Amino acid sequence: MIEVNREQFAKAIDFAAATVSRRSTIPVLSMLKAKANGSLALEGSDLDTFTRAEIPYQGGEVEFLLPEPRKVRTAVNTAGSAEVRITPDGNRVGVVAGQLDSSLCTLPADDHPGADAIAYEDFGVDLGAAELRQIARVVPAISTEETRYYLNGVAVFKVGDWLYRFVTTDGHRLMMVDVPLPNATGALPDGTIIPRRWINIALQHFIRAKDGARLTYGRTMVRNSGEGKTLPVETPGAPRITLSAKRDGATISLTGKLIDGTFPDYTRVVPSESAVVLRINRADLAHAINSLTPLSTGKTRAVKFDLSKPDKLTVSLHSPDIGESRFEVACEHNAPGAFTFGLNGQYALDMLGSFTGDEIVFGMMDAASPILINDPADTAFRGVQMPMRV
Amino acid sequence: MIEVNREQFAKAIDFAAATVSRRSTIPVLSMLKAKANGSLALEGSDLDTFTRAEIPYQGGEVEFLLPEPRKVRTAVNTAGSAEVRITPDGNRVGVVAGQLDSSLCTLPADDHPGADAIAYEDFGVDLGAAELRQIARVVPAISTEETRYYLNGVAVFKVGDWLYRFVTTDGHRLMMVDVPLPNATGALPDGTIIPRRWINIALQHFIRAKDGARLTYGRTMVRNSGEGKTLPVETPGAPRITLSAKRDGATISLTGKLIDGTFPDYTRVVPSESAVVLRINRADLAHAINSLTPLSTGKTRAVKFDLSKPDKLTVSLHSPDIGESRFEVACEHNAPGAFTFGLNGQYALDMLGSFTGDEIVFGMMDAASPILINDPADTAFRGVQMPMRV
Repeated sequence: MIEVNREQFAKAIDFAAATVSRRSTIPVLSMLKAKANGSLALEGSDLDTFTRAEIPYQGGEVEFLLPEPRKVRTAVNTAGSAEVRITPDGNRVGVVAGQLDSSLCTLPADDHPGADAIAYEDFGVDLGAAELRQIARVVPAISTEETRYYLNGVAVFKVGDWLYRFVTTDGHRLMMVDVPLPNATGALPDGTIIPRRWINIALQHFIRAKDGARLTYGRTMVRNSGEGKTLPVETPGAPRITLSAKRDGATISLTGKLIDGTFPDYTRVVPSESAVVLRINRADLAHAINSLTPLSTGKTRAVKFDLSKPDKLTVSLHSPDIGESRFEVACEHNAPGAFTFGLNGQYALDMLGSFTGDEIVFGMMDAASPILINDPADTAFRGVQMPMRV
Repeated sequence: MIEVNREQFAKAIDFAAATVSRRSTIPVLSMLKAKANGSLALEGSDLDTFTRAEIPYQGGEVEFLLPEPRKVRTAVNTAGSAEVRITPDGNRVGVVAGQLDSSLCTLPADDHPGADAIAYEDFGVDLGAAELRQIARVVPAISTEETRYYLNGVAVFKVGDWLYRFVTTDGHRLMMVDVPLPNATGALPDGTIIPRRWINIALQHFIRAKDGARLTYGRTMVRNSGEGKTLPVETPGAPRITLSAKRDGATISLTGKLIDGTFPDYTRVVPSESAVVLRINRADLAHAINSLTPLSTGKTRAVKFDLSKPDKLTVSLHSPDIGESRFEVACEHNAPGAFTFGLNGQYALDMLGSFTGDEIVFGMMDAASPILINDPADTAFRGVQMPMRV
């Protein structure tokens, strides 16, 4: 019988189940692998991303699979006892929390792959909440299009001593942020692409870690049978990225495969010159777009930026079913005569949300060329957005 | 041009749009009829239920349809101005709120039926929040099965001087509450069935009315052409029920058709005698069921009540995919030997939620007969639940 603190157990499930799909076609992957041996580790996996949460427990070795982790967490939290007692017994796992006494169906523990781990470390760095928040700024531009799988993540490039650039793009917009990581050791291959799912779990669960998190990049260990030799041979396997931290009395770690592809040369789409420059208050522009977008139907998301009036931007939206709406905002610009361009309103809002300052500057050569969006007071982050025909 | 207070306008839309279906097959019914004439009234309808909100406005007569009411409300609230200016102009309606300037497509005002009103009042009563909250207790048992349309509402019966009984049932459970209405005037036909949609809108919007609401029952007016005579003849039309109140600077009213059917004789399913009586703390029982239900899949909602142990109720749940769970609760009961019965767990939770006291009492003749559930300290409300096979 394994007795653990109920709150720690529920929080460990919460983290470990982050990689557990609600509708997995492989039954064992809907369960968590539990390894008790001086501590209790719960491991979840979708075969690409691996989560592991380890909580205190005094006792001997036992391995089993915990079924329906999210349901068990809700049930023990509702029962609300101080401790949870878990008794694995063949094809059943007993879970007792206060007056709640459950006997749950399980599967053999060996069928679950468990969590991957890095055996040979090539790169390591400590990340605090501040660094994770910087990386979070580029997340909106990660592509969700499965066919362009090499865009389904964040690409990392070293752009200076201790300075790393995190870049995302979906072909319509691009976001990049430069983060100084002075305590990095070893080398991260340039253009390493960290998958979206890993990033999302990392940002959701590790920002709250008080003492920061440790990021490592390296390779798994492969045990070959050592053909003809007496001893098995260990060799480095596939590359992995791991984030680990202590949180809520648990040690949590998130390990993921990297995206095996080539990130496009993003520097080619970042404009180096601007003929037209628009400087505007960020909150005012968000207010204008947020007031207009309710008056659109379904996918009508194009907003038109009109700089025909001096010191004024007129944002407008035309929805065939509903009608036309416009919103005027004060700005500074140098547009010659009647200058208009179109933007996807939602993408523009995402972009505004990744900035933190009061003012932003749009720069472009003409109404059909990529638009560079930046904040002169915070040069770490830059965005590029492609215009739309309106 | 109509100028009104933006907050009042947005709240009037919020109420009037309660009857507006998001996917109406009749285009005008997705709009609100606006009638300006010394005040501004917004009227919504689904042809069975009618909402009307009237707000202050100084100005002459004009009628038009306001399209996309919910989107307009969100847009003007986001724009956030003090006033809204509305300019109907043929097939367009201009809406200006601060810097937001919209021109919206509309349809001819005559095509919208507008709101129904009672012309001949047969019954009237003032309802405060306390009375509405009493009626709300029976709402969970309203049937949603369209084929038994006469169960899709709350039936009202006069059961004593000034005492009215509100009854609901879906065939699996029955709820009834007796509400004293000493200021009622006139007569409400016994067995009047108020439809679910009317009840839901009434409970959502009128409980917040500080000065209470006025319920009236009566008939609409039909203007006949007065065949052969010079003057038109007015005759009473179909029965209607109306709730009206003042709220947030507006006069709101909700009018509905009644369900044209016969409510079954509910008194026949209310047990008059009990052989087995179970007395239990309401919160403890809810805690037990709430701890068990997460450990079920999809539609497995049957919970088993086992009274085999003295002074103990064991609630258990068996889910074929997940396993078995049980929860013990202290209780008082007089069950002979091994006595068990089954209940739909969600229905039991609904029932517990309609009580307000600490203790409830279950009474039944045997494990297969209807169960009377009541609170000895609050006899106004009673419930009946049919057992399930488990």
